[in-house]
Amino acid sequence: MAYEKKDLPKKSDSLSEWYNKIVLSSELADYGPAKGTMIFRPYGYAIWELVQKEMDAMIKDRGVENAYFPMFIPEGLLHKEQEHVEGFSPELAVVTIGGGEELKEKLVVRPTSETIMYDAYSRWVHSWRDLPMLINQWNNVVRWEKRTYLFLRTTEFLWQEGHTAHATHEEALETVHWAMNMYQKIYRELFALPGYIGRKSESEKFAGADMTLTYETLMPEGKALQSCTSHDLGQNFSKPFNINFQNKDGQAEFVWQTSWGLSTRSIGGLIMAHGDDQGLRLPPRLAPIQVVVIPVRPEPELLDYAREVVATLQKAGVRTKLDDRDSETMGFKINKWELKGVPVRLEIGKREREGKNVMYARRDTGAKNTIAVDDLAVAILKLLDEVQASLFGQAERFLQDNTHTADNWEEFVTMMEGGRGFVRARWCERAQCEAHIKEKTKATTRCLQNDALPEQGGCIHCGQKAEKRWTFAVAY
Amino acid sequence: MAYEKKDLPKKSDSLSEWYNKIVLSSELADYGPAKGTMIFRPYGYAIWELVQKEMDAMIKDRGVENAYFPMFIPEGLLHKEQEHVEGFSPELAVVTIGGGEELKEKLVVRPTSETIMYDAYSRWVHSWRDLPMLINQWNNVVRWEKRTYLFLRTTEFLWQEGHTAHATHEEALETVHWAMNMYQKIYRELFALPGYIGRKSESEKFAGADMTLTYETLMPEGKALQSCTSHDLGQNFSKPFNINFQNKDGQAEFVWQTSWGLSTRSIGGLIMAHGDDQGLRLPPRLAPIQVVVIPVRPEPELLDYAREVVATLQKAGVRTKLDDRDSETMGFKINKWELKGVPVRLEIGKREREGKNVMYARRDTGAKNTIAVDDLAVAILKLLDEVQASLFGQAERFLQDNTHTADNWEEFVTMMEGGRGFVRARWCERAQCEAHIKEKTKATTRCLQNDALPEQGGCIHCGQKAEKRWTFAVAY
Repeated sequence: MAYEKKDLPKKSDSLSEWYNKIVLSSELADYGPAKGTMIFRPYGYAIWELVQKEMDAMIKDRGVENAYFPMFIPEGLLHKEQEHVEGFSPELAVVTIGGGEELKEKLVVRPTSETIMYDAYSRWVHSWRDLPMLINQWNNVVRWEKRTYLFLRTTEFLWQEGHTAHATHEEALETVHWAMNMYQKIYRELFALPGYIGRKSESEKFAGADMTLTYETLMPEGKALQSCTSHDLGQNFSKPFNINFQNKDGQAEFVWQTSWGLSTRSIGGLIMAHGDDQGLRLPPRLAPIQVVVIPVRPEPELLDYAREVVATLQKAGVRTKLDDRDSETMGFKINKWELKGVPVRLEIGKREREGKNVMYARRDTGAKNTIAVDDLAVAILKLLDEVQASLFGQAERFLQDNTHTADNWEEFVTMMEGGRGFVRARWCERAQCEAHIKEKTKATTRCLQNDALPEQGGCIHCGQKAEKRWTFAVAY
Repeated sequence: MAYEKKDLPKKSDSLSEWYNKIVLSSELADYGPAKGTMIFRPYGYAIWELVQKEMDAMIKDRGVENAYFPMFIPEGLLHKEQEHVEGFSPELAVVTIGGGEELKEKLVVRPTSETIMYDAYSRWVHSWRDLPMLINQWNNVVRWEKRTYLFLRTTEFLWQEGHTAHATHEEALETVHWAMNMYQKIYRELFALPGYIGRKSESEKFAGADMTLTYETLMPEGKALQSCTSHDLGQNFSKPFNINFQNKDGQAEFVWQTSWGLSTRSIGGLIMAHGDDQGLRLPPRLAPIQVVVIPVRPEPELLDYAREVVATLQKAGVRTKLDDRDSETMGFKINKWELKGVPVRLEIGKREREGKNVMYARRDTGAKNTIAVDDLAVAILKLLDEVQASLFGQAERFLQDNTHTADNWEEFVTMMEGGRGFVRARWCERAQCEAHIKEKTKATTRCLQNDALPEQGGCIHCGQKAEKRWTFAVAY
């Protein structure tokens, strides 16, 4: 059945096979009936709810308000910003029939909401008093995919998209960076996933943006995952959508805009980065169940003792589950909760009850020990912090060990072929050269990191003048 | 501008004109660019977030878990339950193009998720150990409308849909009633909207259900609003979808199912029932801003004092806003916050500062008085409870005053023509007779209330045998 570990492929043997199997058997997700779609099962959706809860508070703290815009965008509206529509055209799902009739104007299912939101902004913004306009949406978007890669690449996914309008470019830019800093905090502190922040090259930036910031994380096999983005839209949308305002001097000006999003793709990165041959390893802050308590035998005294332990932990705010199913063996239960990545497992037998303690096993290291019940809540909270920190530490070491510097083309090619992760190399910033590098090595520019120092020397590939060392990787 | 009260139509002159104007000018919502669609602006969406927060906790307390299923349903799947597809066919939006290509199988945008969820349930349910399956979704659904009636009738709306599967019909029925009781609590305690609970007639029930429970509220002009529903689906879906399980005796059985939903339509009812000629009157428990604090002049001492008042209230958990805009007059501000329905307005001038008190005005009654700041938080919390109770009391009196009993056809017709609200009358329960009553009076059976007593006598319309007194009204 679902929890037979012997059926699980090794992570190191075939990452994608391991990944699919783990996602399905841990009951995070399932395939939907239409091509490219997926079902977020309760265990997977609960992770997204935990992300939402934390991020929603951070978004609101900034004064950004939630709203909801229609998902159907009349085709004409999407065509108002040329680069934008060209970027998204190949990925659109289109409604042509409504209420039994062929529609006069086709409706695009939103791939992102710039156009439909900014059409409204043009009606809502009149004066500098109406700015900044700070709106966020939690919703579903559609970008056509023929093959599903659960969480990582699906036709429909869930995300938040923030869209702000400002009186000055300076204020807009500040928002672009604020959003990326928020994402970094979420990724580091919740997902336990370190990554590199930087700006995208011209060819990799968002369709319609002047500048895109990205957070790039590293997956096993050395591939980069673009984990979220924050865009400086300049006045690229405010001009065609005519979003102007009267400034304090009574002059009409176009607003400066930003948009920024983080999606359920992030959960794919979480699974892939932290999981091992036994299954998921969920960082405690995103684990729907942080502690599972298992009585080793279905005896009333043990059950009572286990219930007390559960109550103590729940009272301390620990997401705790009692597994008292009598239709499963102890071995089956251990496998099940390891597969599901629960950070801490407590086992309770006669010895523990008499000794007034519990036996714990850490999912991240497998380490086992006992804790006195008197000290239970404090000790478990500390343990969960340790697990969180240890998963982050492992991911950080992996990132460091797989970030290299190449100073010539031969080094670069060797590193890329060897799946060596992120490679920093001088690049001339010409799109054509970038395309050639991709053709030859599959690697693309992931970003120009904020801390990239000025460089002297030629482009690693073409030898032309290069002023900065960009960060390259093969990407998902 | 938006807050010029003189532009507002009187509620009693033209309800629909008043309603549209209030919704737009209070910034609850706006029209979307595609026919039938609407935008939930931040002030309107915040009401939905308050509903979600309360209801989500109640749903989870019952052990129901949230999940997310794809919104694209392959046409073939929708056709598996015949009554269901016939009921929804006229309202569907259909995707025929994806990724630039004509699709082989068209995709329906979910009008509700029975079919796509139960297709998955058939894979997930094997044994009695997998039951009950208790899943809820918060999502967007589409039912085609040509004309938008903001919140009340829109092509896309937001809702929650709960879908459960059980081993016995008894357990399923218990869930149907639990859901309706939860909705009643939400409507009475949050929306301050009393209503009648009962079961729908055969022709009015959900397409695919054996039995539908409804909560019917009363709007001005005496029209009923179907405010949410809870369905006993019997085995109508489990048979075509083949959702069966092995019972404890090893026999295969089909599951018993329920579904239940409450949508953003509820916000339309809220606006319409409680609003008055000055604008919205929001019940405190659903008011995004419960108290607005306005310094009467932009003087530093008054501002400081106002900020202290705001801090005190926010600390006590009151959703409080300081309106210190110096670009608007006091009269403009008062109109604005009355229009937006904020339950309590505090005004702060020199007299209040020196007297260590604040002047309050209640939105529901217009009553004004002062409160000592020493007593502020407690007094305001009490005041908010009073406003909540008073709005409920008014709605309850309105419901009682507009619920009548008709014992013959003449009485019935007169009451319906006079917009007298709910009319209880004996009915034979024949669909044909129901259709004739609707033709002649526009009234439909709203429900058979749970407390309807057995009756002797003939159907009010056709004279045939009638065993119960049904509740009729003209409906939205």
